[in-house]
Amino acid sequence: MSDDLVTFGETMLRLSPPKGERLETATDLEFRAAGAESNVATAAQRLGASSTWLSKLPKSELGRKVVSDLRKHGIGVDVAWSDEGRQGTYYLEYGDKPRGTNVIYDRDDAAVQSARAEELNLQRIRDAGAFHTTGITPALSNQLAETTAKLLKVAKDAGTTTSFDVNYRSKLWSPEEAKQTLWRLFPAVDVLVFAYKDAERILDWDGEARQLAHHLGSEFDLQTAIVTHGERGSLAWHDNTVHEQGIYEADTFDAIGTGDAFVGAFLARRLAGDGVPRAMDYAAATASLKRTIAGDVATVTRREVESVMDEEFDDVSR
Amino acid sequence: MSDDLVTFGETMLRLSPPKGERLETATDLEFRAAGAESNVATAAQRLGASSTWLSKLPKSELGRKVVSDLRKHGIGVDVAWSDEGRQGTYYLEYGDKPRGTNVIYDRDDAAVQSARAEELNLQRIRDAGAFHTTGITPALSNQLAETTAKLLKVAKDAGTTTSFDVNYRSKLWSPEEAKQTLWRLFPAVDVLVFAYKDAERILDWDGEARQLAHHLGSEFDLQTAIVTHGERGSLAWHDNTVHEQGIYEADTFDAIGTGDAFVGAFLARRLAGDGVPRAMDYAAATASLKRTIAGDVATVTRREVESVMDEEFDDVSR
Amino acid sequence: MSDDLVTFGETMLRLSPPKGERLETATDLEFRAAGAESNVATAAQRLGASSTWLSKLPKSELGRKVVSDLRKHGIGVDVAWSDEGRQGTYYLEYGDKPRGTNVIYDRDDAAVQSARAEELNLQRIRDAGAFHTTGITPALSNQLAETTAKLLKVAKDAGTTTSFDVNYRSKLWSPEEAKQTLWRLFPAVDVLVFAYKDAERILDWDGEARQLAHHLGSEFDLQTAIVTHGERGSLAWHDNTVHEQGIYEADTFDAIGTGDAFVGAFLARRLAGDGVPRAMDYAAATASLKRTIAGDVATVTRREVESVMDEEFDDVSR
Amino acid sequence: MSDDLVTFGETMLRLSPPKGERLETATDLEFRAAGAESNVATAAQRLGASSTWLSKLPKSELGRKVVSDLRKHGIGVDVAWSDEGRQGTYYLEYGDKPRGTNVIYDRDDAAVQSARAEELNLQRIRDAGAFHTTGITPALSNQLAETTAKLLKVAKDAGTTTSFDVNYRSKLWSPEEAKQTLWRLFPAVDVLVFAYKDAERILDWDGEARQLAHHLGSEFDLQTAIVTHGERGSLAWHDNTVHEQGIYEADTFDAIGTGDAFVGAFLARRLAGDGVPRAMDYAAATASLKRTIAGDVATVTRREVESVMDEEFDDVSR
Amino acid sequence: MSDDLVTFGETMLRLSPPKGERLETATDLEFRAAGAESNVATAAQRLGASSTWLSKLPKSELGRKVVSDLRKHGIGVDVAWSDEGRQGTYYLEYGDKPRGTNVIYDRDDAAVQSARAEELNLQRIRDAGAFHTTGITPALSNQLAETTAKLLKVAKDAGTTTSFDVNYRSKLWSPEEAKQTLWRLFPAVDVLVFAYKDAERILDWDGEARQLAHHLGSEFDLQTAIVTHGERGSLAWHDNTVHEQGIYEADTFDAIGTGDAFVGAFLARRLAGDGVPRAMDYAAATASLKRTIAGDVATVTRREVESVMDEEFDDVSR
Amino acid sequence: MSDDLVTFGETMLRLSPPKGERLETATDLEFRAAGAESNVATAAQRLGASSTWLSKLPKSELGRKVVSDLRKHGIGVDVAWSDEGRQGTYYLEYGDKPRGTNVIYDRDDAAVQSARAEELNLQRIRDAGAFHTTGITPALSNQLAETTAKLLKVAKDAGTTTSFDVNYRSKLWSPEEAKQTLWRLFPAVDVLVFAYKDAERILDWDGEARQLAHHLGSEFDLQTAIVTHGERGSLAWHDNTVHEQGIYEADTFDAIGTGDAFVGAFLARRLAGDGVPRAMDYAAATASLKRTIAGDVATVTRREVESVMDEEFDDVSR
Repeated sequence: MSDDLVTFGETMLRLSPPKGERLETATDLEFRAAGAESNVATAAQRLGASSTWLSKLPKSELGRKVVSDLRKHGIGVDVAWSDEGRQGTYYLEYGDKPRGTNVIYDRDDAAVQSARAEELNLQRIRDAGAFHTTGITPALSNQLAETTAKLLKVAKDAGTTTSFDVNYRSKLWSPEEAKQTLWRLFPAVDVLVFAYKDAERILDWDGEARQLAHHLGSEFDLQTAIVTHGERGSLAWHDNTVHEQGIYEADTFDAIGTGDAFVGAFLARRLAGDGVPRAMDYAAATASLKRTIAGDVATVTRREVESVMDEEFDDVSR
Repeated sequence: MSDDLVTFGETMLRLSPPKGERLETATDLEFRAAGAESNVATAAQRLGASSTWLSKLPKSELGRKVVSDLRKHGIGVDVAWSDEGRQGTYYLEYGDKPRGTNVIYDRDDAAVQSARAEELNLQRIRDAGAFHTTGITPALSNQLAETTAKLLKVAKDAGTTTSFDVNYRSKLWSPEEAKQTLWRLFPAVDVLVFAYKDAERILDWDGEARQLAHHLGSEFDLQTAIVTHGERGSLAWHDNTVHEQGIYEADTFDAIGTGDAFVGAFLARRLAGDGVPRAMDYAAATASLKRTIAGDVATVTRREVESVMDEEFDDVSR
Repeated sequence: MSDDLVTFGETMLRLSPPKGERLETATDLEFRAAGAESNVATAAQRLGASSTWLSKLPKSELGRKVVSDLRKHGIGVDVAWSDEGRQGTYYLEYGDKPRGTNVIYDRDDAAVQSARAEELNLQRIRDAGAFHTTGITPALSNQLAETTAKLLKVAKDAGTTTSFDVNYRSKLWSPEEAKQTLWRLFPAVDVLVFAYKDAERILDWDGEARQLAHHLGSEFDLQTAIVTHGERGSLAWHDNTVHEQGIYEADTFDAIGTGDAFVGAFLARRLAGDGVPRAMDYAAATASLKRTIAGDVATVTRREVESVMDEEFDDVSR
Repeated sequence: MSDDLVTFGETMLRLSPPKGERLETATDLEFRAAGAESNVATAAQRLGASSTWLSKLPKSELGRKVVSDLRKHGIGVDVAWSDEGRQGTYYLEYGDKPRGTNVIYDRDDAAVQSARAEELNLQRIRDAGAFHTTGITPALSNQLAETTAKLLKVAKDAGTTTSFDVNYRSKLWSPEEAKQTLWRLFPAVDVLVFAYKDAERILDWDGEARQLAHHLGSEFDLQTAIVTHGERGSLAWHDNTVHEQGIYEADTFDAIGTGDAFVGAFLARRLAGDGVPRAMDYAAATASLKRTIAGDVATVTRREVESVMDEEFDDVSR
Repeated sequence: MSDDLVTFGETMLRLSPPKGERLETATDLEFRAAGAESNVATAAQRLGASSTWLSKLPKSELGRKVVSDLRKHGIGVDVAWSDEGRQGTYYLEYGDKPRGTNVIYDRDDAAVQSARAEELNLQRIRDAGAFHTTGITPALSNQLAETTAKLLKVAKDAGTTTSFDVNYRSKLWSPEEAKQTLWRLFPAVDVLVFAYKDAERILDWDGEARQLAHHLGSEFDLQTAIVTHGERGSLAWHDNTVHEQGIYEADTFDAIGTGDAFVGAFLARRLAGDGVPRAMDYAAATASLKRTIAGDVATVTRREVESVMDEEFDDVSR
Repeated sequence: MSDDLVTFGETMLRLSPPKGERLETATDLEFRAAGAESNVATAAQRLGASSTWLSKLPKSELGRKVVSDLRKHGIGVDVAWSDEGRQGTYYLEYGDKPRGTNVIYDRDDAAVQSARAEELNLQRIRDAGAFHTTGITPALSNQLAETTAKLLKVAKDAGTTTSFDVNYRSKLWSPEEAKQTLWRLFPAVDVLVFAYKDAERILDWDGEARQLAHHLGSEFDLQTAIVTHGERGSLAWHDNTVHEQGIYEADTFDAIGTGDAFVGAFLARRLAGDGVPRAMDYAAATASLKRTIAGDVATVTRREVESVMDEEFDDVSR
């Protein structure tokens, strides 16, 4: 039974004090698994694509916690278990204006950083409809940069659509490092997702978002180039046409994972045969719903997403 | 010692995960009694009317939880205890834009659905200043539709003012079913509360709210017809005059029970001798306060309500 | 990919106040999935047998909560989704001497009560190493008594080992009703688990536990007859020999699910090829560990179980 | 509608960190109403005696919290509201061997300390079957010593049975002060409850408990003298006969309020017409159950108490 | 090792139910130390000024809780321990429009009310760069009014800069009482902080804020006069010039302590040698950050404050 | 102002799910600083010795959390802040028979592992009455083994009493590694604490505890040799005499840190001039109290410890 979508990357354990509390004086932490690529797999699963997350985890209570949490959200988990390496964690302090939400990584020497392609279930990638990873993965170690390249090649060679979200993280690498590594990966990518603000940092881009989409699409010979632009919405270059998508307004409870929800929903609906504009609409609605949910993961239903798209909002449904 | 107000209806146990959490992945639930008619009794009690709630409950730990919670809020509880039937519950997921708060009923076969008039303390209704119930009650079972009709008649015959809030629930019945049943009840009603959006659904009303109030008042020969209109405020038709009432702005913590707080305060102040415009002002202020309070129940004081009416808002009182 | 073990039965949502609190005055409840047959599947999975739970669930947030919780523990979930019927729940008040733990069922009209054999994935049963259910299932409805009989037949016909735990529940049926139904099922059973105290109630048994095991084994032509006897341990009749097994002492945190942990571990180790005495040892150790864990489910590892069997207890491991 | 039992005394708000936590470093506190005389009223109510607690409370959010909590437990509350004086509170640190549970009073200048007899609903005392208070009340202020004397006289004059529990508190007064005040009150008492350890402190008693009961009964011309003796049980002198009562073993969750549960159950069953030995049995069983419940209050049912008396203990009831 | 800043005043224990809950029905309270002068010391410490809080505390678990909490935030604590007097507490109900946050004091007879200058470590004041207290302190008792005067004199005589925040509290005294006492203290003050709304109440001021600053500065021969004006920002009169400072917008989680954060930051930066406009900028940014933090205390870092000043806000930093 | 006691070592952040919960499925964790040497400093401080903990911490929110927590308990904190290295953490799963409490270290590459003697405040060690560290410290890195040796030498040379607790951790090193390193350190030690079970593992000791004490004392020319022997108590060899000390029975809430409490109290009382037997008695009583307290730290008072020594246990003190 092959997957619609396979993703690869690191999933950490996220530790966060209650809203309003500082980490320095916190006495209780929420504890959840969280990672861009498993977030994407979950969002895709919930929008109808059977999805599996590949990774490498330490053989420990903490590695098992990651598996337990991801399975709970409904995705397949296919991991290499390791006797070496840590379980990556991160601490999150919710913030509100004028203080942003703060992410404190404690992910050095995670087991996943030593993951070689051969340790992973490559057949799942070959059999899948699409394969997705993000710019976080190659930023984590040289080994992972190499593994990422190999997995993209495995997918490409097998005819599996490849999807890649730049997801620039300034706490992991510099814009120059990112550019150097990513530009080597892009030729194997079919669907590229680039946040406008990342383009500002990595490409010194100061032009229009539409031009950026055109530029990326032609420069890397993409099938689809998606540019996300925060409050201004997003746009997708596809078949040499740019499709614009607005946002659905949200009262944000937890912003983390919004982009992953967007990408997961987009991929799921594309894999289900929807056209790019329709898939972008699902993506925007799923992203908006994610903002109302605690944790990194978009635990939504397709029906809820479609309610948002139909603007059926009701204060209370009863 | 007779009551100022007696209400009758179902009170459920409400189970809700913390804000931001989905029911599907929740591990902890808040647990409170909640029901339209006991909400009204509580709001009325707190605005000065001695109030008692009548109902039928299963003789179990869950039935006792309902009694304990309602007594805590200060009202009288006079119930028939049953060896048959469940305790109704509902699950509530708080939502924020673009996802509304979601109510999931688990109230089938509740003990109250078999409540016959003869099981209830009818003398309390006869001795009371007013009797109140809502459109939820007859929607729950044929027996309850019959019981509701009988109780309204008992009240009417005894000279007790009868009050009825339409409170249409689409998860309980269709607009047609509602209309059929309710129109048989309205002739026994003195004070009728109708939400404009319910009139849209049940009456296909698309005229002005004022006209709706006039229409209801004359059609059913009411003493008072109240139309609530969300953010636009409310209006009361009385003595052939329509009184308009604005809203008091609120930062909403929990919207459930806002309408019940409105009705409870209105009845309490009418029973205390206030004129319709003054009672509507109390109602609007109580409803606004309710929005800032967790749970269905308006645990306010009269003094707090009057502070809102006097617009004495201060960020911090110390 | 066939399962080692398939189980069938109802899994409820368990709602429990913190230790020391009464349901009547509780304000917060823990919320977990719990059911004898999914407990058995989980214990078996964790002892090395790939396990799947079959059932029927309402298509709702509550049904999805059950699936999410069970997947978290690692088992397969293969359910028929229903538009009719409730999600069964139960409330649990932890008790200590002189007040026992109290279970308050609210499981009437659960969707599973209408489950017909044809709705379930019978092929999984045919392909599995063993099939397990309990006496709770046929106690829930006539339909389920019939379905249980059919599933045992499907298994038996396919050469799948059948396992059955009597699990008498006095809040569901009388000893006479139980006897009448169960005696019709036993002929299709290979492995029968009978608590001594249930034999006292259903069989008016007052003889020795050994004799009970012999009696059951020969009367129903069993492969294995297991009698559990609380603090006195357990014994297994197999190949006309009775094997005795002591208990491993435990400081009990939560006693619910102890028997299910026992059965799940026994089946897993038998399926893995262990002899009856060795499997009984695993069973006793897993049951003992379960007692230290909150909730119904034995979230143990095989290594932990073997540590108990090796009596390697250390106050603190560091 | 007259009460079976009326009690008078101070009820405080109890603030306690979770088990294992020190107050000095605690960040969260449980918050409950707690007081000997309202505890007695609640236990009596739950054993079948309609009961009301009289007191004086500050007209504040804290005074209202006391009323809300007590009503939740089912008793009547009839208080004088005061513009002067504090709401008494106490902090409780749960302790286990070798550290006892520690009570830190913050009850100085509580509103109740100024309560005069004329402020209270004396008619309720005159109409009641019994009136109960404890040695804590006269220890709190001179005014309360005077009020206690007056209330006992009001009861006595009206033919209401008077009940008094010595409840010596070393953090409130010295043995000498206690003796001086209490000996003036005892002549108006019908039922006197004296803990053996209090007799050691106040009376320098070192004889047998039986002799103490005889001594008290004859010295103060009592109807009933009860001596409680911890683990050794209790005994009641009545009609010149001493009845011994053993204890029912309990795993203690919260020991506070055990004595109050004992007295409340005893009074309720005596008021219901039970003989002294039978009432003592109820008292011992209720006290035992109380130990398993968080907070000061015995939120039990009569049926649960009778289960204990019938020694029907079952680990799990389902 | 001398302090940069020494403050003196009462610190209470703050007890608050979760957001949305009423005190009347709350079952759990947060528990934190909170007081204007220790808030100021903490904010100053975190902005780089070594700070110590002087006070008098009861020798009890509650007094130790205050010390523990303040030390946690990093300041020095130098207190006189008392065998007499209570630990002041206050209850806080978070409110949102149309209901403000409500503070219920329970601080009568606190140990600090009897604090005489001689009990305190006066040498610390003499050695410090600045000494700060507020109008709350003299409002608490006649003794404290006298002590406040003495401490200001001790500071003044030693050449320590004196700072005073009016902090008018209507629940402690009337405007007339405040004026009478404060005007006697102002001659010894170098830096005076006056909220515009307090000037409206105490001075019947209805002129411009700038004029108020000029007026205060010249009338009391101040070094610096600061007027805070809520949403409109603040201004500082210094060297006969008025410096205006805007606010940094904040999404408020907990407004209590905003003013103290402002003053603490201002003093710290002045003591570090910054000019008045720069110190006011730090003050405004610290106050804005405080609003996002639970509790009274600004547990910020200097770097976070400077990020706000540089308007480097990012939704999520990672 | 010199310290009575200075300690050096790693303090981690401890993350623990509630009792009964498995880490694998936990959703909430308690969060506290915990480390053997800061535990010792805290116990000593609370028994009357002014104490400071030296270490190296990462300059981050997590490092600051450690400082905040330790200051809260009242000790001095004097650390080198590092831009390199992690903050060590550990996860703790409470266990009960037959499952022990499980400690899962995540402390690799902690900043402290690179701590060189020159980075630390050596003057504090030279000025102190005693210096203490444990066998955990040199087990963490080669650098720390070297640093430990240097610090012991610094202390020895300055005439500061040196104290060392073997504290063998099998998850950090093998018995052989431990022996090799520790035997090089012991010549600089004055007071050596050795658990009997560690001697079994490191020394293959199977003789009597008394002999072990004698052996250690003479072999390493110690001032004092302490052997702790679990339930059997402890003994101290001093001046060629062995003093035996029993245990004070405890109902254990949290066993972690019991040994540290013992050592801290012993050192504090020795520094205060008590003889060895008296100091051992304090040590045993403090260790017993620690067992009743959540977390690693003995937040006791000297008075509480003396109450235990006087066996003044009372169920409830009020």
